[in-house]
Amino acid sequence: MTHLPVLLEDQDLAGALEWLETQPAYSIADEIARMDAVESVITFRLLDKDRALEVFEELDPVDQQQILEGLRDQAFGDLVEGMDPDDRARMLGEVPAKVARRVLAGLSAHERHMTAALLGYPEGSVGRYMTPETVALQQNLTVSQALEVVRRRGANAETIYTLPVVDTGRRLTGIVELRELVLSDPDRHVAELVVTEPPSARATDPAEDAARLMRETNALDLPVVDSEDRLVGLLTIDDAVEVIEAADTEDVARQSGAEPLERHYMSAGVFEVSRKRVVWLMLLLVAATLTVSVTQAFEDELATATQLALFIPLLIGTGGNSGAQAATAAVRALAVGEVRTSDLLRVIWRECRTGLLLGAMLAVLGLLVGALFVGWKIAVVVAITLVVICMWAATVGGTMPLLAKKLRIDPAVVSAPMVTTLVDATGLIIYFTTAKIVLGI
Amino acid sequence: MTHLPVLLEDQDLAGALEWLETQPAYSIADEIARMDAVESVITFRLLDKDRALEVFEELDPVDQQQILEGLRDQAFGDLVEGMDPDDRARMLGEVPAKVARRVLAGLSAHERHMTAALLGYPEGSVGRYMTPETVALQQNLTVSQALEVVRRRGANAETIYTLPVVDTGRRLTGIVELRELVLSDPDRHVAELVVTEPPSARATDPAEDAARLMRETNALDLPVVDSEDRLVGLLTIDDAVEVIEAADTEDVARQSGAEPLERHYMSAGVFEVSRKRVVWLMLLLVAATLTVSVTQAFEDELATATQLALFIPLLIGTGGNSGAQAATAAVRALAVGEVRTSDLLRVIWRECRTGLLLGAMLAVLGLLVGALFVGWKIAVVVAITLVVICMWAATVGGTMPLLAKKLRIDPAVVSAPMVTTLVDATGLIIYFTTAKIVLGI
Repeated sequence: MTHLPVLLEDQDLAGALEWLETQPAYSIADEIARMDAVESVITFRLLDKDRALEVFEELDPVDQQQILEGLRDQAFGDLVEGMDPDDRARMLGEVPAKVARRVLAGLSAHERHMTAALLGYPEGSVGRYMTPETVALQQNLTVSQALEVVRRRGANAETIYTLPVVDTGRRLTGIVELRELVLSDPDRHVAELVVTEPPSARATDPAEDAARLMRETNALDLPVVDSEDRLVGLLTIDDAVEVIEAADTEDVARQSGAEPLERHYMSAGVFEVSRKRVVWLMLLLVAATLTVSVTQAFEDELATATQLALFIPLLIGTGGNSGAQAATAAVRALAVGEVRTSDLLRVIWRECRTGLLLGAMLAVLGLLVGALFVGWKIAVVVAITLVVICMWAATVGGTMPLLAKKLRIDPAVVSAPMVTTLVDATGLIIYFTTAKIVLGI
Repeated sequence: MTHLPVLLEDQDLAGALEWLETQPAYSIADEIARMDAVESVITFRLLDKDRALEVFEELDPVDQQQILEGLRDQAFGDLVEGMDPDDRARMLGEVPAKVARRVLAGLSAHERHMTAALLGYPEGSVGRYMTPETVALQQNLTVSQALEVVRRRGANAETIYTLPVVDTGRRLTGIVELRELVLSDPDRHVAELVVTEPPSARATDPAEDAARLMRETNALDLPVVDSEDRLVGLLTIDDAVEVIEAADTEDVARQSGAEPLERHYMSAGVFEVSRKRVVWLMLLLVAATLTVSVTQAFEDELATATQLALFIPLLIGTGGNSGAQAATAAVRALAVGEVRTSDLLRVIWRECRTGLLLGAMLAVLGLLVGALFVGWKIAVVVAITLVVICMWAATVGGTMPLLAKKLRIDPAVVSAPMVTTLVDATGLIIYFTTAKIVLGI
């Protein structure tokens, strides 16, 4: 099948319409995310009303904004009124104030009220991602009465599979799964089926923590409460998966010394991409001047044994690699909850021994390489340096993310490049000092 | 509250029992995953039968194996009989043949049959992760008849929220959500509520692709079919989330030049961790000998202008950072489906311009640093080198993951260290060649 961009380029309107009709909403959203502003608005206008809403809800906030700006008032109003309140709040949190005002003005009182409530929660918190439209039950109902409540009030709810149970003060006392209601004898009481003390989150908690908790507990929906334990919503699994994916993408980008892009990789411009990368590159370049100073400090030794210069890239490269491995493993283990900051000493001890073992194995290889290129004496220096550098790099790399977390900094900013740069300078000191001792210069 | 390991160390059995009683299953599993073999078996034996199964299902296959080996036949049999068939198949796929035989021998005929069927699918495929126990409906039922089927056959199914609809040959024709059945008039026909052509997967497809499709389509469960489109199971969202988490952890490890650990970070031994890291370190060290050769080839130039050596770490470090940023962004964009291999030329063109822009900005900084340490002439060499290196590194880093995918290699093996090592050697050539031209040596 011809791809949509080709059809648009050929101005094949009939072909484009047919393509849009036969493709699922998520595929259309995928194509739109890859387009520039003009193309995406043109494509969007070709969709009929119901499809338009479906596709719109699949888009990222930046793309949603782009499309809203290209729509007339009627289409604009229909679109924002039809969105789920949590999707809408998330979009509003990221668009300019002018657009946000236009959106809120176009909403019905009921929808505006719900959206405003979600916007009251801090960015990145559970409150921004939860759905406020839940079907809550009282404990004293029978199963058939409960199912009746679900039938009466379920149409507007984003999910009816998890039914929070509340007391008369709307405080959360448990949950009942729809599965249990459907499979149980209609005369039983809800109280018998309630899971008390279910995993839950506060609306002000970080959304990532709540999402990881859902992953750990295999929950389909997580009840969300306010500071007084009153039910305010449910975090659904699809939103949780989205939160985890975004958090992982952010971690991955930070780990490489870049800030995450706010939009689709293919539609982000060269300037935007550069802006996300340049800050760290500059900071690291400045930090790397340390390597210039260190090398300068050992200029006499370098002049005496010029062959030492040959191994500088190899040694600091290996140190950097070893440090990056340890840092990456630690950041990921922290993210998925396998390591806690209280494990600091155990991590140091493990990485220190791991680095020693790795260094010893690499030293054998280094000895051969060194002997091959410049003879035994410098080869010994290279081998010893490898052992010390690997031990040092693995320990620093494994420790820094935990220290960052203790200091309430995102552990992912302890990027591979940051560890590499740090290990570069210290590695040179280790190298030249070893050379001085072994070669007696 | 005192942590479990402390209680065990103090031999405070009553305290340990109390801790185990009050903690949710996933927390207990979390603690067990961090323990060594002996501690984990002791802890596990303290659990009562129902809890034991709950906790067991939360563990990774390596930990499950460890525990099974420490159990007597009765407890062993109860445990494996109670597991979900997909969890059991996944565990069996990773344990030694001896353990697998003991497990299969202990199962009832029905459970053994289901497990064997799942084990027939290749490792990492959807078939290993799906649940074969589904409630399938026929299209000609009314809503109330369909609900009756669900009530009668739902108790054994892992999920009843997605009900596959099949024809008389058991071929998948659509799905109905339980939500629709519950909220609809009981006299309507299932045919009216069916979603035809739902997203689905083949049992032999890679589980990661199916899981990403669920993420894109916000599906709670994905119908799984065989090569003749007959329904064979459902992939549930909790398994999909687990698949994505494991795939991301693998990508992250590979990106840092290490193979992923098979077990919990805190319980993996120093030898196991070293084994996962040493192969890449060795390969990269060998590749880095290229930098030794290059430097050696330019030894005369280095001897003439010894100050050139000062900037080697800074330049190759910056090149490596720039390449790592581009590579990491490309690998992630491929993983989440934002970039396709057909985008190769567009990616090259984007990264090339991004690198040029970044290089130009860094060159200004490089000029200042160079002038500060050694004077203008070498500073100009440093600045020019930064522009060329950044452009080259970003292009190589962004391109290689796409090329790898074209060659059907996991793009994540194009790790930051691999790009860095490659850019190190070529970067030195760029540096020394620029020096020769500018300094006229």
